[in-house]
Amino acid sequence: MDTSNSTLSVAVLDDDKLLAQATTNVSRNHSTTLMPVIESVIKQAKLTIHEIDRIAVAKGPGSYTGLRIAATTAKVLASTLKIELVGISSLKLLAANITDTNRIIIPMFDARRDNVFAGAYQWGKNGLVNYMEDQHISIQELAERFQNEKVILVASDATELYENTAAQMNKTDVKFASKKDSYPSAYVLGLMAKDEETVDIDSFIPSYLRLTQAETQWLEKYDSERIEYVKKFNDKL
Amino acid sequence: MDTSNSTLSVAVLDDDKLLAQATTNVSRNHSTTLMPVIESVIKQAKLTIHEIDRIAVAKGPGSYTGLRIAATTAKVLASTLKIELVGISSLKLLAANITDTNRIIIPMFDARRDNVFAGAYQWGKNGLVNYMEDQHISIQELAERFQNEKVILVASDATELYENTAAQMNKTDVKFASKKDSYPSAYVLGLMAKDEETVDIDSFIPSYLRLTQAETQWLEKYDSERIEYVKKFNDKL
Repeated sequence: MDTSNSTLSVAVLDDDKLLAQATTNVSRNHSTTLMPVIESVIKQAKLTIHEIDRIAVAKGPGSYTGLRIAATTAKVLASTLKIELVGISSLKLLAANITDTNRIIIPMFDARRDNVFAGAYQWGKNGLVNYMEDQHISIQELAERFQNEKVILVASDATELYENTAAQMNKTDVKFASKKDSYPSAYVLGLMAKDEETVDIDSFIPSYLRLTQAETQWLEKYDSERIEYVKKFNDKL
Repeated sequence: MDTSNSTLSVAVLDDDKLLAQATTNVSRNHSTTLMPVIESVIKQAKLTIHEIDRIAVAKGPGSYTGLRIAATTAKVLASTLKIELVGISSLKLLAANITDTNRIIIPMFDARRDNVFAGAYQWGKNGLVNYMEDQHISIQELAERFQNEKVILVASDATELYENTAAQMNKTDVKFASKKDSYPSAYVLGLMAKDEETVDIDSFIPSYLRLTQAETQWLEKYDSERIEYVKKFNDKL
């Protein structure tokens, strides 16, 4: 499942075969939509939830609320059903849409005010390799890092973001992902999750990659670790 | 919508943006599933059916029943709602999953007894160009046609089909589509349908590309045109 940005995508796989998938891209009301979509997709796959062995969730970066919804849902399901949990970078998931390229793949989410969440990946012999860590970065700095490189940008519904980034990347050989490769797909997430290590369900948290205002204030007040804030916030739920 | 083979896929687009999509791959019971899935996807897209402008349907080749279900549903909807209808080759749809390649793309469906439905496509300046017409062909003949070429095969759930074909294509440079590009996607169909000419709703029929046993017998008996048989069959419904 992925609700880390405006796309909500859920899929059920049997090994690497797609059984059923649903993807919507129209509302950020993921909190009310996610569980009904999960139930519907499992039903379409002609399974019951008790036949699920492993849950994979896109762990961020992305929308603070979206990440909490998916992570909480995935943790509750994995814990209740006593099954495995895997978390995968939401940026790596988007990068995995682009196959058959030697270019550096730069998946991006708009983070407003000329900033993005972005990473960089490249296909190696054993799959998609991280080239630049996922981070919150200004478009200008991103452009400077990839001067004279050959890159391909991937972002959902991001015509404006593409244009802004390409305008800054005037010393880079830039391509854009085709429209069909621009949305995160839970089927691709499931394929990736087969080879990923499972995580400890209780301690799993999403990767926000940016301090929220509440976190910044908490840190100023208590001078504690960021992870502690999230833990305390979780404990309150 | 596409129900031409074991995959059922329905998507709603706004121009080239994906609003909602559902894909299942578990039953051939498309006759009872298709309309509920269409209704659900339109609802997920936060639209009503009266806001749909154009219907695109994968027109075959494929399963005789699957093609009739999609074509009939699409025709009834287009005719009732007085909107446009577009039919797209089910093989071309599968080929369109493979972007960024100079290889000849060969989409295939298993047609049993070492036969396939197959076509060949290549990316040109203005999109996907037909290189070999969609046809019912033996794997052996297909292999002979593409000797010394560079090809990429695309088929759903077709490990065995890939192996059989690659074994015959021992004089060809063969690649296989990645798993994520192996299922027909109604979103891709919708993107393709934007640029396609509309068809006359009443006279639209799927492309079976192979005479069914019933048709063969009819032809033997009445010596009439194949299209006449389909027309008479339609008239009876």
